Amino acid sequence: MERIGFIGLGAMGKPMARNLMKAGYTLNLLTRTRAKVEDLIAAGGAWRDTLKEIAQHNDIVITMLPDSPDVDLVVAGKDGILENARPGTLIVDMSTISPVTARKLARDAQARGCDFLDAPVSGGDIGAANATLTIMVGGTEAAFKRALPLFQKLGKTITHIGDSGAGQITKAANQIITSINIEAVAEALTFAAKAGVDPVKVRQALLGGAAYSRMLEFHGQRMLDRNFKPGFRMALHRKDLDIVLSAAKEYGAPVPVATKVREMMTAMVESGRGEMDNSSLVLLLEEMKAS
Amino acid sequence: MERIGFIGLGAMGKPMARNLMKAGYTLNLLTRTRAKVEDLIAAGGAWRDTLKEIAQHNDIVITMLPDSPDVDLVVAGKDGILENARPGTLIVDMSTISPVTARKLARDAQARGCDFLDAPVSGGDIGAANATLTIMVGGTEAAFKRALPLFQKLGKTITHIGDSGAGQITKAANQIITSINIEAVAEALTFAAKAGVDPVKVRQALLGGAAYSRMLEFHGQRMLDRNFKPGFRMALHRKDLDIVLSAAKEYGAPVPVATKVREMMTAMVESGRGEMDNSSLVLLLEEMKAS
Repeated sequence: MERIGFIGLGAMGKPMARNLMKAGYTLNLLTRTRAKVEDLIAAGGAWRDTLKEIAQHNDIVITMLPDSPDVDLVVAGKDGILENARPGTLIVDMSTISPVTARKLARDAQARGCDFLDAPVSGGDIGAANATLTIMVGGTEAAFKRALPLFQKLGKTITHIGDSGAGQITKAANQIITSINIEAVAEALTFAAKAGVDPVKVRQALLGGAAYSRMLEFHGQRMLDRNFKPGFRMALHRKDLDIVLSAAKEYGAPVPVATKVREMMTAMVESGRGEMDNSSLVLLLEEMKAS
Repeated sequence: MERIGFIGLGAMGKPMARNLMKAGYTLNLLTRTRAKVEDLIAAGGAWRDTLKEIAQHNDIVITMLPDSPDVDLVVAGKDGILENARPGTLIVDMSTISPVTARKLARDAQARGCDFLDAPVSGGDIGAANATLTIMVGGTEAAFKRALPLFQKLGKTITHIGDSGAGQITKAANQIITSINIEAVAEALTFAAKAGVDPVKVRQALLGGAAYSRMLEFHGQRMLDRNFKPGFRMALHRKDLDIVLSAAKEYGAPVPVATKVREMMTAMVESGRGEMDNSSLVLLLEEMKAS
């Protein structure tokens, strides 16, 4: 059994690490605040104080960190994983970061005789806890096959999309569609309510036809229930759209409506509602004047 | 069995009239060009030369016309249905028109002792031919119950949403969501392709998760196949968004992204692509510069 290092044990990383431990893996752990993972250490996880120790003690290193600069620093920075890893080490980054950064890190890894997979997930903390995450993977076929047994303990729908960066690009595409579809539902239900028609009945009628989306089903219901407890936080979805916009610029892809929805999410964050579920976008619409 | 008049026998109206005739109703027919419905007349449909004759010979009059002014003229105009109808006549407008017009026509009908239902459909010409339309109905419960046996010969999902206008408002909400969701799919797949990742694989991976929509499934596939034969024509979807925008203004509802997508559909129509399927919105995106 390969030895696994896990860096970044927050809301997503911690339940994922726990699922790997349940499956029999011995994990070497590192996260910003040791106190938050004493339960994992008590259950047999080995705490490591530095990235160097993680790199030296493991065959596969998983990272689950907030944003591109964090992953870049941990993987390619001074005293980081690549500086200390033995050749043949596989780094699996499961964070949602820029595909541009992911492709650079894959090249950095290759230059040190190591492998790198970008393997972002969707499904949120519930998916992480229940091991039902969707995992979108970019990198070589050999690296994918090597990581697959781990992925199967973490998620349900696991797809090898293509070469390095393909996982992050698929995740970015996912965030484009989900954010825009939330806005679509918010505009339609607000329109119905303002026009004096029960939005509950409108949503129900539309679920059976061409307007059906997961966002209409789940986030539409949240909007009707005024249930804005996350779920997936507005500030994080906005951060993912920041990634989309910078990658879109890099690759010359126009994303006019994603750009517009990012502006609206920014307005929500800047008005102090970044910690609400992303379905709370409907609140901004309710405050706006008619076009 | 109530006597049925049917006005407007185009791409949608004609197959709907045929389904009612198959179910045993004798129909009185009127449309702009008699030559186009000689087959229905040969099959037992009675041609009527004027709106007055339609009004006088029938208990229920169905209209299926291009736009709000057409329905207004036929129902409430000089020598139109209401001027000539006996009290108790039920007018069922199944066109997609402005909810503001629908509510006005319901009041006009009531003033003449008649009933009016707004009952727009979705499902396209295939749904019309196969009697699988989704029918969204606004008006009184009594009028809905009276028309229900007819609706059941025309569609599959039939919902009485609320009072007059509620059917058109639901249809407008449907058009808001479908148009925006098409744009979401177009942005995501174009982004993936420009970033060097196979959009076929990206769509396949996203179908299983939060990004799922009918538009991702069906219109996403059309985009990948470059199959822009309608389906539902761009020019008609643009017209429906014109209805959305004017109703949104009337009711004070902000629809910023629907407004943006309408601009894009207008650019498609003005560049001579109004007859293509609405999934061709992806072409406009491919021609745009990156944001």
